[in-house]
Formats: sequence, C-alpha cells, structure tokens
Amino acid sequence: MLLSLRPDADDAQLAALRALADEGGFELRFLDERRRVAELVGARGPHLRSRLEDLKVVREILDPGQARELHERNGRPDTVVRIGDAVLGGGHASLIAGPCAVESRDRLLEIAHAAHRAGATVLRGGAFKPRTSPHSFQGLGAEGLLLLEEAREATGLAILTEVLDPRDVELVGRSADAFQIGARSMANAALLREVGLAGKPVLLKRGLAATVREFCLAAEYVLDAGNDQVILCERGVRGFDRVTRNLLDLGAVAHLKGATHLPVIVDPSHAAGRADLVPALARAGLAAGADGLIIEAHPRPDEARSDAPQAVSLDDLAQIAADARAILALDGRILAAPRRELVGKGV
Amino acid sequence: MLLSLRPDADDAQLAALRALADEGGFELRFLDERRRVAELVGARGPHLRSRLEDLKVVREILDPGQARELHERNGRPDTVVRIGDAVLGGGHASLIAGPCAVESRDRLLEIAHAAHRAGATVLRGGAFKPRTSPHSFQGLGAEGLLLLEEAREATGLAILTEVLDPRDVELVGRSADAFQIGARSMANAALLREVGLAGKPVLLKRGLAATVREFCLAAEYVLDAGNDQVILCERGVRGFDRVTRNLLDLGAVAHLKGATHLPVIVDPSHAAGRADLVPALARAGLAAGADGLIIEAHPRPDEARSDAPQAVSLDDLAQIAADARAILALDGRILAAPRRELVGKGV
Amino acid sequence: MLLSLRPDADDAQLAALRALADEGGFELRFLDERRRVAELVGARGPHLRSRLEDLKVVREILDPGQARELHERNGRPDTVVRIGDAVLGGGHASLIAGPCAVESRDRLLEIAHAAHRAGATVLRGGAFKPRTSPHSFQGLGAEGLLLLEEAREATGLAILTEVLDPRDVELVGRSADAFQIGARSMANAALLREVGLAGKPVLLKRGLAATVREFCLAAEYVLDAGNDQVILCERGVRGFDRVTRNLLDLGAVAHLKGATHLPVIVDPSHAAGRADLVPALARAGLAAGADGLIIEAHPRPDEARSDAPQAVSLDDLAQIAADARAILALDGRILAAPRRELVGKGV
Amino acid sequence: MLLSLRPDADDAQLAALRALADEGGFELRFLDERRRVAELVGARGPHLRSRLEDLKVVREILDPGQARELHERNGRPDTVVRIGDAVLGGGHASLIAGPCAVESRDRLLEIAHAAHRAGATVLRGGAFKPRTSPHSFQGLGAEGLLLLEEAREATGLAILTEVLDPRDVELVGRSADAFQIGARSMANAALLREVGLAGKPVLLKRGLAATVREFCLAAEYVLDAGNDQVILCERGVRGFDRVTRNLLDLGAVAHLKGATHLPVIVDPSHAAGRADLVPALARAGLAAGADGLIIEAHPRPDEARSDAPQAVSLDDLAQIAADARAILALDGRILAAPRRELVGKGV
Repeated sequence: MLLSLRPDADDAQLAALRALADEGGFELRFLDERRRVAELVGARGPHLRSRLEDLKVVREILDPGQARELHERNGRPDTVVRIGDAVLGGGHASLIAGPCAVESRDRLLEIAHAAHRAGATVLRGGAFKPRTSPHSFQGLGAEGLLLLEEAREATGLAILTEVLDPRDVELVGRSADAFQIGARSMANAALLREVGLAGKPVLLKRGLAATVREFCLAAEYVLDAGNDQVILCERGVRGFDRVTRNLLDLGAVAHLKGATHLPVIVDPSHAAGRADLVPALARAGLAAGADGLIIEAHPRPDEARSDAPQAVSLDDLAQIAADARAILALDGRILAAPRRELVGKGV
Repeated sequence: MLLSLRPDADDAQLAALRALADEGGFELRFLDERRRVAELVGARGPHLRSRLEDLKVVREILDPGQARELHERNGRPDTVVRIGDAVLGGGHASLIAGPCAVESRDRLLEIAHAAHRAGATVLRGGAFKPRTSPHSFQGLGAEGLLLLEEAREATGLAILTEVLDPRDVELVGRSADAFQIGARSMANAALLREVGLAGKPVLLKRGLAATVREFCLAAEYVLDAGNDQVILCERGVRGFDRVTRNLLDLGAVAHLKGATHLPVIVDPSHAAGRADLVPALARAGLAAGADGLIIEAHPRPDEARSDAPQAVSLDDLAQIAADARAILALDGRILAAPRRELVGKGV
Repeated sequence: MLLSLRPDADDAQLAALRALADEGGFELRFLDERRRVAELVGARGPHLRSRLEDLKVVREILDPGQARELHERNGRPDTVVRIGDAVLGGGHASLIAGPCAVESRDRLLEIAHAAHRAGATVLRGGAFKPRTSPHSFQGLGAEGLLLLEEAREATGLAILTEVLDPRDVELVGRSADAFQIGARSMANAALLREVGLAGKPVLLKRGLAATVREFCLAAEYVLDAGNDQVILCERGVRGFDRVTRNLLDLGAVAHLKGATHLPVIVDPSHAAGRADLVPALARAGLAAGADGLIIEAHPRPDEARSDAPQAVSLDDLAQIAADARAILALDGRILAAPRRELVGKGV
Repeated sequence: MLLSLRPDADDAQLAALRALADEGGFELRFLDERRRVAELVGARGPHLRSRLEDLKVVREILDPGQARELHERNGRPDTVVRIGDAVLGGGHASLIAGPCAVESRDRLLEIAHAAHRAGATVLRGGAFKPRTSPHSFQGLGAEGLLLLEEAREATGLAILTEVLDPRDVELVGRSADAFQIGARSMANAALLREVGLAGKPVLLKRGLAATVREFCLAAEYVLDAGNDQVILCERGVRGFDRVTRNLLDLGAVAHLKGATHLPVIVDPSHAAGRADLVPALARAGLAAGADGLIIEAHPRPDEARSDAPQAVSLDDLAQIAADARAILALDGRILAAPRRELVGKGV
C-alpha cells in the first residue's frame, strides 16, 4: 500500500501512522528522505484503508495494494443477484416496476398485472414513504405490505419495498423479497447493518450528493454484515438545472460496472422527474451497461398521490420493456422474463 | 393561496385539485380562462401546502397566503433556545465546542475545561459516530455518554451529542442536554419524530445537498411532533472544489434568520475541513448573523481519531471565542457565558 | 403571456412593467386584485421575454404564450444541419472524430484516415486550444489550420475546429467547414455574434455550469445573427465526484430534442475524461436521442499533448461507430456515411 | 517536484515523461520499483507544472517543490493594488460601488456622489454588459464610457468597468482606471492576455463553476503577460439552491489570502442576488479576510434595467461602508477613504 503523506507532518502524526502499522504487523517504509511518500508492506484487508484515511498525516492513498474492500471488483466475476424470477448481473438484466406508493388494493393489482405483462419480474411499491414534509402522505405502512403480498400472490412478481427505520426491518422482511434503501437513507449505517443481517437482497440507491466512493462504502456496510446480495442503483444526483429533477450519472454506472462486482441498475423515473423523458433515460442506462431498470408506473399518473409527474403510463412501460430487450440484445444480454404465465387475469 | 398550474392539465388532474379543496372546505377559483392560475380561498394551516405540492397539476405555489408552516417566521419573534447556560436567538449567541469523537476520559476532561475557559457553554462530543466506512472507528457508544456526563459534572457545561438511530434516543436522552441530528440524518424522518417527542433541544444540521426548503421541512418534522426547541446548523454543502471540504452557505444563514423564527448557527469546522480556515469562517458566520458556533477542538489535533485535519487547538479556540465576542458586540449581541466558575481545575 | 409578479411590488415597479407593455403595444391585465399575476395580451416575439425577465417586478414567466424565442421547437420540424457529408437532425446522425489538438502533419493524416475508415464524416482537431494554464501547449494556430485543410484534401472529411477569439473568426472560417465554440466560450457574446455572421455551421458546446436555458440563449445569439445552422453539444457539466471528469447530462439531451428544433450531439470524451468509459457513454448518448457524437481519438493516446487520458484508440473508434449504427437502427435512424471512398490510402 | 504516476503506465508514457525532464535539464528518479512515484530533481519555474499535468502518465503532483507559479504566495508579502484612492492588500481594503449598468448621465452622477459620500473610492458601472440573452439590454457601450469619465471628473472616484471583447481593450482602457473581467470571461485567454498587456489593474471575477485552481490560473494569464496588478473577486459559485442567486464561497476567500499574494475581494451583490442579504454577506466577506467589497447600488433599485433585485439603496450602501469600517478595525485594517472632498455637490 502506497501513501502520500502531508508534507508538514510532525513527529506525533508520524508516530500515529507507525502505531497503526505496528498494530497490524505491517512494515512501514518511507520512499523519500522528506517522508512525503510511504509504503506499508504486507498491508491487507478492507479495514486498514479507512483507518489510514482517518489519520491526519495521510493525505491520500496512492495505491491500495492488497488492502481491498469487499465491494471492489479486484478480479472477481459479477455477483449475480436473484429476486424471484429477476436476475441481475452476469449478462442478465431485470425490469422492476410499480407505483411510487401503494395506494389501494385495486390500483396495485392493476399495476402489478400490467407490469407482469410488460415483462417486469419485480414489483416495486412504497408502503413506508420517505417524505420531505411531515405534512405529506407517508404511505399505508403495514397495510401496504399486506397489499404487496397479495399482488405477489396474484402475479408471481417478487416484491421490493423500502424500509426506512431499523425497527421495521423485521416487519418489512416478512413481506418483501428484497429491501430498498432509499437515497435519503444511503448513509444510515444502523439501517444498512440491519438489512445486512436480514439475509435478503438489498437494492441500495445512491444518495443525492454521494460520491461514488461514499456509495460503495454504504454497500460495504451491507457486505460487511455478511450479505453480498447488494444491487447498486443510480437515480440521479442533485444538479443545478431544473429541466430534470436530478442529474442521471451514467458515467458512474459505467465506472461501477468495472470497479465493483455488484449489479448496477438505473432509476430513470427519479432522475428525470418527468414521465416524458423516462423512456430515453431508460434506454441510455441500459446502453451504458446497467443490469436493469426500476420504473415508476401508474395506470392514471394524474391521480397518483406522490411523485405523479414522473410515473409513466402502463402502455409506456410496455414500450420501455420492448426497448430494453432490443438494446440488451445488441451485446448479447438478456432481460429476465417472468416464468409464471398469467391466464385470464388481464385487467 | 395562489397556485400556478400545469398548462396541459387534464380533467382528472383538475378533479384531484378540486377534491383536495373540498376536503379542506376551501373555495377554488381559476383566475384565467385557460386555468393556469388558481386561488384557494380560505386555505390555512401547514398541512395543505405539502399536499398541494404533491399534486401533478400544481406547478408551483406562487403565494402561500395563510397556509403557513410551523418553521416560518410569519411575524413571530425569535424562538430562544436554552441548553444549560447557552442561549441562542433573540440577540444571544453561544459557543459549542468539543472533540469530534469522545476518545478517552482524560482527553475529554482536558478539552471540556479548555472549552469552559474559552467561554463555551456547551460541550459537543460524539459517542455514536456516523462514519462513511464500516471499517472506521464508530465511537465509544454508551461508554462515551458516561464520559460526557462526567465532563458536565466537572465543568458545568451542557452536553450535546449526536443520535443516529431512533432506538438510541431514549439512551442518549438520559445523558444529553440536547440532541444533535447530523447532516447524514437530516432526512431521517423516523429519527426526527423520535427526538421531536423527547422534549429536549435539537441541533439539526443541514444535509450535504439539502435545499433550504428541505432543511426547513426537516425542522418541521420536529416542530410537528410538538417540540419547537430546534437550532438550525449550516455546516457547508457539497461543492465541486477541493480546497475546502464543503462550501459554507452563509447566504442561507442570512436568509434563514429572516424566513424562520428558529436560531441558526454555523459549523465552520466541517465546512472548512481544515483547521487553518476555521477562525475566518467562524468570524464570517457570526458577521452574517448566526446565533452561535459549533467548533471541533482537540488538545493535540494530530492524534484525533476522526476528522483530525479540521480540529483547532485549544489556544485557537480561545481566540475564536474572543473574536466572536468582538463581532457580536458590533450589533449589540452577546455571547452567553458559562455561569459556573471553575476554581483550581485548570489542566 | 402570463407573469407571476413579486408580491411586494411597489408602484414604480409596476410602472416599469406598464411602460414596457405600452412600448410594445400590448395590453396589460392583472388577474387578481393584489396584482400577483398579470397577463400581457398580444405579446409576441423573442425580444420581450428577456426584457420582462430583467424587470424587478417580474418573478417568473408562467406561460410565454406567443413570445417565443428562435431556438424553441414551437411546432417546427427538426432543423437539419449539414457539414460536408455529415447530416445532423431529422433522423440523421453523424460521427465527428479526431485529435484534441492538431500536433503534426503525419499524426493528423493518420487519424483522419482512420476516422474516415471508421465512418466519421467530420474531422475535429484544435488549432487554437483553450487551456486552463498559460504555461500549457496552446495549439499550433494558423499552421494547424493548414494541416486540417490538407487532411480534408486527403480524406474528403469536413473540418470542424474551435475558434476562441472574435478576431480569428475570419481566419478560421477560411479553413473550417464548421466552427466549434467551446464550453469556456459558450457565454462569449462577441464571439457568438461573429460566428453567427460568418454563415457556416456552428457546433456550440454547453458551458461547464450552464443551465439548459442559458445554453439555449447562447444558441439564440447565433440564431439572432441570422444563422440557424447551430448544433448543440452536451459535454458534461461540473459535478462533485471525481471518477469522471464531468457529469454527462443526458436528461438535458432528451429535453432539448423536444424543446428545440436544433440538432443535439454528445461529447463522451470530455464528459468521461477517461478513454475506458467513452464507448459506454457514446452508446448511452445515442440511446437518449442524440443526433451524433464527437469523439477524441489518437493513434497512440499515451503521446497526446493534451487531454491524453480521454482519447480512444483508433480501433475503439471503429467499434464506437459500429455500436452507433446498431443503436441508431433500433429506431430507424441512420449514421451519415462518408461518400468519397479512400482507395489505397490506408496508413 | 514529487509526482504520483498512473500505476498502469506503459513505456511510451514513461518515455514522454523522460523527454520532458530531459528538455528541461532535470533529473528524473523513481522512488519505488513499480514506478508509481517519481521525483524531478532541480525542476523550477511555473511552466513545468502545467506541462507535467498534461502528460497521461502523471496522476497528480504531490509536491511542486520549486516549480512555483506566479500567483502563488510562496513567502511573498501581499501585492498591494492601487486604483485611484483605493488600496487593496497589505491591511488596506476598499469599497467599490456603483450601478450594474450605466443607464443615464443623471442617474450615474447621483450614484457616484452617493458612493463617494458613503466612502467608496472606485465607481463601478457597466458600459458593455454581458447578457445571457441577445434580446436583453446590452449596455450603452462607448457612450457609457464617456459618462463614466464625467463621473470621475465630478467626484474623483476611479473608474472600474468591464471589458468583454479583446478588440475593446484599447477603447475601454482609454476611459477606465481598472478593467473588470467578468465571471463569464474568466477563462477567455485572449481577453486575459490583452488586459495583461494593457498595464492597468485588473479585477478578475471567479467563473461560475471555476475551481480555485482554475481561478488562480486565469490570474496567471494576466501575471504571465507582465501585469501583477490583479485583484481576485469571489462572487459566488453556482449552487443547487434558489434562495440565493449564487453560493458565496468564503472558504475560498480565506484560502486564497494564504495561498496567493494577490488581493481578494467579495461581491455580495451577485452572490446574493437579493438586496436584503447583501449587507450580511458584505460583513461576512470582510470578516473572512477580504480586502474589499464591490457592491451594486442604485438610487431607485426598482427602475434599474438589469440585475434590479440585487441593487441596494444608497442609504444601505452608506450602512455597508460603516459596517465595513467597524469590522476591519477589529484586526487593525483600514478602509481606504476618498481623498478629494466634495463641497456643495450633494444631490
């Protein structure tokens, strides 16, 4: 491991570095007389890197050597995550679709059937909703979870739903096939640890202004708890322009596909914030290498109780799925299809 | 309340607006034939605004009229928050100081005595630390809380410490005089509600990329739970430049002093991320109208286990307090002083 | 035209609004008693909107009505821009490729031949280079223009090159088939006016932190000078993360295709700043609807004198073109092909 | 000079580095076997750093050693810049005030007299205005320059005005005592070189999204042309929030005071974009260490033809100057006063 040190480091700072090296049984060598570059010989494991970065004397890690973190590609093949019929990673992509919030039984079932027909394999829907204002609709809670279970029963779609509070992980885990950690919760370590222990796939959304490294380290909390079923989701970062709600960072998607072994998907709905731009950003995300899409859809978007401007119609959803299959086929990738057929259940 | 509507709104969208108006007993009037501007006559209360913003048809609220939220100034005098000897708001400012993390008994007491001597009235110190990496030092936890209690006993300083997990609010509340909600937790509604119910002052830090409105609505969660002892803390937002860790938004501070009735303080330590710039940004924050400062200090910054580059020395802390008194005096404001005298307790 | 006015507007402010209405012969009507919303009946033309936005009393234009600017779609079909064999807009896309800077005759010819073989129709190459530091290589200047002419002669590719200084527009225009206005120059009105008058196509890059509206108004300077041969180029905006050089804003591309009649292309090279991510972002840009690509390529990227890390190899360029044809074919679009065949000219 | 190299550098890349070292007569040494860190022994002068940064093999300059650029502090005392009676740097601060644009003779003289009375020593006012839209008021041009000369004659205030086009430098230089380079022109190298050669002080505004290093290198263009009379002006960078027009970066101000020898001033008017916040940000800027302020003022802000919402009244301007004197006095600094007295010229 190669370290750039602060040029003005004093003895106390260097002593702290030496102590950490000794503690781990590593050899510390300075590469120049003025002690601006150091090598830690023999340094391994994910723990060291963060502790070194916390030292004042360490300006930057120039080369991590063998001190690799759990999310890093480091020669590993793709981690493939399965949620019901959905497969993500290793050349497989999946479509996750559904309403922003679970609003009512009939509407949820209508969307679930349409999502299934379009080719989605996972139904998304919020029972617990993270809202900017305490005065906004906060979701149906436990009742919403039961409706999601019913929709799974009816369609065979797996259920993805958000958990906001570490105290709800057990409750949500009884209904959901996978946990969603929203952008606002990306850095909620208590929550990340709980879902890490719960043993189900975790879809982790990038925080609104999270660097790619911070995003990876949030995933690291889940991995460090023993759960490697993590899907990274790029959903747009905060930008300065208002024609879209957020700024979809497809450079990060392309980077993450190389730098980590985890599947990466794109959420064009929250990125655009406008239904008319969702199909274009969905295509772009897959063309950039994403392993799937998560799309907000609604039979009558105008009546949605949250995030209405960004929900696509069910017809548009079918078109997005068709476009996805065509783009994935260009480099031999496959959109996972629902295995169970729905007979006579159309709405 | 005056609303700008989407020009392409269809009947379903307008019906949703009408339904909300009916539910609240308000009269809905369109100001032009093409229904691009509407007035809700009689609309009051904080709840309506968020629900209207969630409707697809509502492009923007042009004038909230009487539908005011709880954090809004709306003619109210300053809310004055007291934490031990600290007073914030209404022409009073306070200095909060301490280490980033509680590390050991001796060091904490040394800092606490120095902070008291400098003129701080509140001791800050993290027992539960929010860390980007699971491999970093996460704080001493409950043991850290006991050390903070001991420091209060020894100095008379009130205790401010961060709570990260709603399950810890009761535990932390037994030791702390005020809760800190960190930038990563600003949008953690479950946590905000719990501290809202706990009945102690809450120092709420602005999220890394939170708009001023999102910041105010996070405070609204605490206020809505019945607790108006909320201190807003500007600590820098994410910028694109690296000479400072974050970008201190003093325009937001000046705005918030007019737009809300809550006290507003500045955290120059996290904004700068460099000890050498902390005194300048501390002065600037008070000159912009802030009601106080929260400063990371450490007797030997080089040995701190987290955030070392931004901790000022104890001598610098005394200078920051002296500068604060001078700047506050320019417009007749006062830095709250510790009432209890420390005799023969110097370190 | 519908205007939202400042709620606290005084008589002088309203008089300024009335004077502007009178000057243009428009009728001014207030839609509510408190004069928070006004309508300008009969208001037309692009000039009014900017002048209204400059008035203190005007908070926002809610609906521009007939006061449309020249770049706006407003029902117009795609403007199709041709540069030599390149066609952009109206279902046609083109590939522009070449080195960052013109460095030497042999290297330029080598790249030009390879670009032609790959399917590019326009050769890009900087003779005058905008550099952050005065101590960096600033380009070959007029000598570089002659080398570009020679490359055109040899390959039939049209020439696109940047102009930085209004005094150079005539000189550059003698050699170039199209002008490039770089991101640093997007708001250089003097330069925009000069290229507007020069009567050749203009490729206008979005400024590093330009809003979409500012970008469109920069194009408006060229259009207002009588030249509608403007190609908008999204090249990434400044972000806070460092894994890519800039943040490619494909939401803006999708929006611009609907909101303007001008062709829109994508520059994945400057967006990524890393050659390994260029192919993915190139595919994503076309999938989002872009009418073409501009790619930096170099036979031996390691030896390039500027922007070396982002130049793709000539083999990668051929692959990018093949991918482009495949993606464009999915919705019936065509990549313009060089008409002139190169016989026995391979390098 | 210490360099971090790309870990995957091949022979061609290393050869390019060696060639540059040879060209300059420096010795190149690798500090580790794997050639990840190199030292250039004997490397001096400002030119080398930018050329090294352009090499693909160079990941980062860890320590510039003696290869210093012209703007760097590097032990130099403050450069003191004088414009008429204004003094900036070395413990002296100055107030620059005036309208956004020169609009008419009477109004300009009214403002100039008021600015003089308040304690300003320089009159700002735009004759050539950079405007986002071609349809906006573009300034009075040469006529505006003559009005500025007349105002100087009447008040003794020195004249600062913006130049946008390198072809206008001579014309503007005949009237102005100092050139302003606006934020949109910060990276306009042709313009920077021309004002560098013109031999008058240059007030250089930071670009909307310029890093501190890019800002310094823009100044370097002027310094490199032989003119060290450069004043750096922080005017707010583009942020994501709308309560202020821009985000004033006082951390950059504090940093620049240490890292460069040039005077640094603050423009609270463009930062805030709202007159009500200008006094607070003006105080904050000086408290952070700025050597002066540039303020937009207008006798009847409501009637200003550009940037009306941010112009302070002439009464507010006097208060800002009084606050400035008080804050500067806290650390022994002085606000330069106009030497010429105005007798019986009040308006």
